[in-house]
Amino acid sequence: MKKIALLGHGVVGSGVMEILEKNQPVLVRQAGDGVEAAHVLDRRTFPGLAYGDRFTGDFSVIRDDPEVSVVVEALGGVEPAFTWARESILAGKSFVTSNKELVAAKGDELLALAAEKGVWFLFEASVGGGIPILQPLRESLTANRVVAVAGILNGTTNFILTRMFADGMAFGDALAEAQSLGYAEADPTADVEGHDACRKICILASIAFGSHFHPQEVHTQGITRIGPRDVAWAGRWGGSIKLIGRARRTAEGRAALEVSPMLVPGDCLLSRVDGVFNAVQVTGDMVGTTLFYGPGAGKLPTASAVVGDVITALTQPAGSRPVPWGPKKEGLLQPWEESAARAMLRVAGLAPDALETFFPGCRLLGAEEGETALITAAATQGELDAALDAARAAGGNILSRITVLDQ
Amino acid sequence: MKKIALLGHGVVGSGVMEILEKNQPVLVRQAGDGVEAAHVLDRRTFPGLAYGDRFTGDFSVIRDDPEVSVVVEALGGVEPAFTWARESILAGKSFVTSNKELVAAKGDELLALAAEKGVWFLFEASVGGGIPILQPLRESLTANRVVAVAGILNGTTNFILTRMFADGMAFGDALAEAQSLGYAEADPTADVEGHDACRKICILASIAFGSHFHPQEVHTQGITRIGPRDVAWAGRWGGSIKLIGRARRTAEGRAALEVSPMLVPGDCLLSRVDGVFNAVQVTGDMVGTTLFYGPGAGKLPTASAVVGDVITALTQPAGSRPVPWGPKKEGLLQPWEESAARAMLRVAGLAPDALETFFPGCRLLGAEEGETALITAAATQGELDAALDAARAAGGNILSRITVLDQ
Repeated sequence: MKKIALLGHGVVGSGVMEILEKNQPVLVRQAGDGVEAAHVLDRRTFPGLAYGDRFTGDFSVIRDDPEVSVVVEALGGVEPAFTWARESILAGKSFVTSNKELVAAKGDELLALAAEKGVWFLFEASVGGGIPILQPLRESLTANRVVAVAGILNGTTNFILTRMFADGMAFGDALAEAQSLGYAEADPTADVEGHDACRKICILASIAFGSHFHPQEVHTQGITRIGPRDVAWAGRWGGSIKLIGRARRTAEGRAALEVSPMLVPGDCLLSRVDGVFNAVQVTGDMVGTTLFYGPGAGKLPTASAVVGDVITALTQPAGSRPVPWGPKKEGLLQPWEESAARAMLRVAGLAPDALETFFPGCRLLGAEEGETALITAAATQGELDAALDAARAAGGNILSRITVLDQ
Repeated sequence: MKKIALLGHGVVGSGVMEILEKNQPVLVRQAGDGVEAAHVLDRRTFPGLAYGDRFTGDFSVIRDDPEVSVVVEALGGVEPAFTWARESILAGKSFVTSNKELVAAKGDELLALAAEKGVWFLFEASVGGGIPILQPLRESLTANRVVAVAGILNGTTNFILTRMFADGMAFGDALAEAQSLGYAEADPTADVEGHDACRKICILASIAFGSHFHPQEVHTQGITRIGPRDVAWAGRWGGSIKLIGRARRTAEGRAALEVSPMLVPGDCLLSRVDGVFNAVQVTGDMVGTTLFYGPGAGKLPTASAVVGDVITALTQPAGSRPVPWGPKKEGLLQPWEESAARAMLRVAGLAPDALETFFPGCRLLGAEEGETALITAAATQGELDAALDAARAAGGNILSRITVLDQ
């Protein structure tokens, strides 16, 4: 029997225990032996559980148990997860986590430390929940230079946007429903403001570019300003609005990262990803466009990704694959102002003629209820900022600005 | 510089050479060293190529070169590929192939031989072209018992069906167009009759169930009988018709495999996969439903998968993962007659009342142009056969029968 330890018995942690209980025959076949959690660390106690006697509140019990070769962390937050990750790795144990905050903040440090100590630091569950995405990116697509990654990386916001699109709900009502269903937290800031999606696109971009990206340096905009008029025009244009995390390789080899609501064309599969599901589209210079879809959160899907990593850590020699990324490279991240895209604008107070002057090459979608909607030609965000300022100076009221997800 | 050899310089083989030429920096990062094809076996010669001097017509040159550690095969067909695979593996070389005929016919033997000799036998490119699907199934989803795999596994037929649906073309015209674009061969039998998709679902099912499935034992039906009336009713029902290869785990633990045109509901992403693209939906008992999408064929996408396998073979120790499947297990494959599904029927010569008698619980879609369309209740194929015989005996003319892809 191979022994692991678990930090945190919340939603994901209890899911890990459930898989270890239910799928032992599968694990035996994959790992060549049974897998058991020798210790579960949690502040709470769970006396009713069959494995209630394995709980501990003391991390050193886990760190100092020589039989434990893999530590699984499902606590969330940077601390104490980071300290315990370091101590686990320094003690010669592989570390598997579902914690995107930890990976986005400290991934480069922990990857380097794990490489030095000859153990695994794995985090498939930190992006896309149960969707296999990091491993395919690190292993199956290795013949490619990644050109772009774009994904629906947050199930809560996708649920809200789906309700707004499919059922005409207002943002606040859809958020309240998401909260009542347990899809959104009491404080939904990290989801609706895009911070969660930003951590995940940083992790994906770090793999794609081989160096660390910090979430606080990435342009991030949430969905709180999306309203029914945006939904209506997007539908008429033939697409949908999704919160997209995107990383692109520019012609100069820089990395253009951003998180924002984007207008997704109806013929792009991402526009069909609804509810709490996630999807990640990866474009490689050789393979072209691929897409990975599945449940982006939830107890068992996330635990499925965690246990998959545990099996890798138990069976495959660390060091057989290159370290996926190193420290941040100065100058690699393109300033958001320089990134080019088309945008959908809703403008009041200016006639179509005037709009075509401020936004040359734009395509007018129509005018109604005192506003005009248009799709601009491709321009950098900085150029668009300047054009919007000019339009405002001429009496225009910019009601919304939504980037178009072009392929 | 790590040395490989290539068998076959056709579409896929020349794509492999192109990736080795263009993406050396990527390969160096992934493999820790450059990768070069020391020998290319082909009957033809290509004097204009930069690597024209590496061609050989003699396999023993490759087999006996101790510097070659990986042999890539992109010939197609069982022989001589099988013989050369055996000889390569016996010579201690890993073997990477894009050849689904070879894997579907001889996978169990070659996997066992590779395990015995401590080398890799890898074939990511044999299913779904450039889509990473076999490696995620073998590695990322290892915490799961696979419940079902269903996929659009043949780009040629998906192109034809897309043209029939989106543009109202007749089957023959769409096939002719596919041929003129190079998507279909002069003899399109293997594609349009479902044999190609059958090899691929057999490979997927072999991984999912851990034992070999032979294509000739799997119920296989192509798309040649799909006509404009089927297309019209499917659209009205709110779905699409796709050639689906499917493997399901039954309640009794048996494997239900089939290839046939299926009616795919509009809310299933598979219904949105158009043109020559492929997609594979994998349902695991823990993760739920995931989907993998991308280019199912083509020079560089397929070569991308091949080179990904080459990097695995060059960098990771063989034997670090369990052998994905062993020999055929007698009795594991459920006879097709016992597999349960709903079906769409088009029937002439019987009134709706009579149809409801023969197909209890059915849902009538409508009647026009002398035919009635209906969706049956779920029944085994054997039960449906019997009901259809009874309907025929009463004067019914069964115009078509298309299985519904239920989740």
